[in-house]
Amino acid sequence: MNESPGVVDLLGVLAYAELSAFARMTEDAASLAPSLADQVALSELAVAEYAHFRLLHDRLTELGADPEQAMSPFAEALDAWHTQTAPADWLQALVKAYVGVGIALDFYREAARHLDPSIAKLVDEVLVDEGRSEFAVERVRAGLVADPTASGRLALWARRLVGEALSQGQRVAAARPELALLLVESASDDQAQISRLFATLTEEHGKRMAALGI
Amino acid sequence: MNESPGVVDLLGVLAYAELSAFARMTEDAASLAPSLADQVALSELAVAEYAHFRLLHDRLTELGADPEQAMSPFAEALDAWHTQTAPADWLQALVKAYVGVGIALDFYREAARHLDPSIAKLVDEVLVDEGRSEFAVERVRAGLVADPTASGRLALWARRLVGEALSQGQRVAAARPELALLLVESASDDQAQISRLFATLTEEHGKRMAALGI
Repeated sequence: MNESPGVVDLLGVLAYAELSAFARMTEDAASLAPSLADQVALSELAVAEYAHFRLLHDRLTELGADPEQAMSPFAEALDAWHTQTAPADWLQALVKAYVGVGIALDFYREAARHLDPSIAKLVDEVLVDEGRSEFAVERVRAGLVADPTASGRLALWARRLVGEALSQGQRVAAARPELALLLVESASDDQAQISRLFATLTEEHGKRMAALGI
Repeated sequence: MNESPGVVDLLGVLAYAELSAFARMTEDAASLAPSLADQVALSELAVAEYAHFRLLHDRLTELGADPEQAMSPFAEALDAWHTQTAPADWLQALVKAYVGVGIALDFYREAARHLDPSIAKLVDEVLVDEGRSEFAVERVRAGLVADPTASGRLALWARRLVGEALSQGQRVAAARPELALLLVESASDDQAQISRLFATLTEEHGKRMAALGI
């Protein structure tokens, strides 16, 4: 509906999220994949994240913003999330990719409801890739067939991923009020609305866990 | 001229070289870049390597080969090169990217002289990206202006990069005679011709060092 300062924040946080997801997935693919085919599958997902990064980066430039400056306020929170959730094995890496991409897409969808149509279009382009991380579901399910005892461990892992994401998200929302305002219906009672947004994200996360079978 | 077993080896070694360069450059970009703009510049180069990997991967599939099987004989030598040449700082990472991409492109050019036209076309597509690593030249030169004492250290580093590459290359040529044969004019005296090929690569490397100003 407008291009408030919050829009640059929103594009900046999404851009850094994509850039860091690209780097971490690529690293996880190279260091944890049990086969070259698996490494390639996760690298494909990483490169798709990079393509989203490029869209966001270009949109920031078009808006007259400096992309690096727009991203930098969010680097610390997102880097902290990645440091706290470094996967220890291949199944953890797959669950992280699926959960991380899922949370990001929920966020894009939520943002699209409140934004200027030209940015909503960018969000649509990103959402086209929605099915990409499905390969992770199939491989996690196969992994659980091979080792059913991994299920409880992965369920805990997924809970940690989303817990750390919500905690970093709360931190960002508190530090960047314009960004938070952009994602809620009105300025009144915005803390409650942020909590509601986070509840939606948690609910979607639950559905993804069911899809993974954990 | 033909699609001998050596062709699958050639596409396999190039594919693994691109895949591993993609992963290492992405990691170097994330861990060593002094700014987000620098991280993005090296990540762009990494993603271009991945696009080359995809071309090679698809070509292997078209030839009826299994891409993972075609790559795997070369993983050890290329991983060893990367382990022996992990950059310690940003300037080393830039020099490695420029030198590594340069050696790979020399190799593509040499291979194109001996190959079936359909593969030569693929090589042309890769060579279109030749100018991409030029940003590294500019940044290394700027780095040397800021700190002229880095020059000797980087010259040694570049010598190590190419030395380790030639040593891994000799190892691969000895283990894969069909591949080696593909890159030389005739079967007679092929060891001498391989040495000649390596001499050409070294000469091109010298030109790149001059461009970097080291």
